[in-house]
Amino acid sequence: MSNGNEDLDHLIALMAKLPGLGPRSARRAVLHLIKKRSLVLLPLADAMHKVGSTVRECLNCGNVCTADICDICLSEKRRTGQICVVEDVADLWAMERSAVFHGRYHVLGGTLSALDAVGPDELRIPKLLDRITAEDITEVILALGATIDGQTTAHYIADQLPDVTVTSLAQGVPVGGELDYLDDGTITAALNARKAL
Amino acid sequence: MSNGNEDLDHLIALMAKLPGLGPRSARRAVLHLIKKRSLVLLPLADAMHKVGSTVRECLNCGNVCTADICDICLSEKRRTGQICVVEDVADLWAMERSAVFHGRYHVLGGTLSALDAVGPDELRIPKLLDRITAEDITEVILALGATIDGQTTAHYIADQLPDVTVTSLAQGVPVGGELDYLDDGTITAALNARKAL
Repeated sequence: MSNGNEDLDHLIALMAKLPGLGPRSARRAVLHLIKKRSLVLLPLADAMHKVGSTVRECLNCGNVCTADICDICLSEKRRTGQICVVEDVADLWAMERSAVFHGRYHVLGGTLSALDAVGPDELRIPKLLDRITAEDITEVILALGATIDGQTTAHYIADQLPDVTVTSLAQGVPVGGELDYLDDGTITAALNARKAL
Repeated sequence: MSNGNEDLDHLIALMAKLPGLGPRSARRAVLHLIKKRSLVLLPLADAMHKVGSTVRECLNCGNVCTADICDICLSEKRRTGQICVVEDVADLWAMERSAVFHGRYHVLGGTLSALDAVGPDELRIPKLLDRITAEDITEVILALGATIDGQTTAHYIADQLPDVTVTSLAQGVPVGGELDYLDDGTITAALNARKAL
């Protein structure tokens, strides 16, 4: 892949490392960036540099942020007493987009996994236990994935927790989902958790 | 789309403007970048800044480069006497990847188009005529797209050219192509241009 220019080749090679982009789409993206140099390329370079030099993990919850404590932990508008435990930052963002949870979060940074040798100390579980006491938490919502590892982690955490209410997300038919396309496990879960109309 | 952090939101919004990325894949890409801050994010920001502050069009051929004249025009290894005319820089890169053409290029910057009001002076056609005299060109290869606009442009250029050999890319069955999936026009062109084995 030579365009006869080192700087451009280097930029294309770096862009091709992004998830969702390969060499071909990286070339397209770079040509697009060059055409929109002042509108996109330079602002994007600046935004990346700014994020790259300031981004870190919130010391309290593990969210990514550009200060020691993230905006959600600092916000006085968030309801105290509730912590929503998620696997990673992408899950926290997904919860925030639904804008239905108004408490604070705790990002584990993964799930317990015997295969990958991830134990409780590799995750942010000790810090979660500290926070429950320090922040007067009354309810812990375990919003972990409905995978084997996610559910194992949820059970482990539920066992460790002191005297607080522990809940987890409901399982069932996704909104807009058609029964025909759902797996047996989801239908079983949805039937077992059926509600009176 | 709020992650509770302005800098991150800004970066995601800019990434989502890239071709091939939407809001969801931009978020994924940004999380990936944050995780690989020193390996990808900061080098990418630097590479973008470098390209953004130096990239321009080659004054001779219209290729993108980081100097006034591009490496291909400057290279002494390129065969003189041949110019390959392409629509845009992406086409030049595609030709270079096939590594089969060893002459120099001329990037038109588009095609003639009555609908979009693109006339000869909007393209780099006058400069092409200048170069044919100045660089002692004996063959002009018109490597334009097999579209209506591309072929109109090719005919227009062929009419303007002084006494040089004018060729265009062959049309036919693409390598790896199956007849079953080809359109009528391609099969007609391939049959008309059939070769003795």
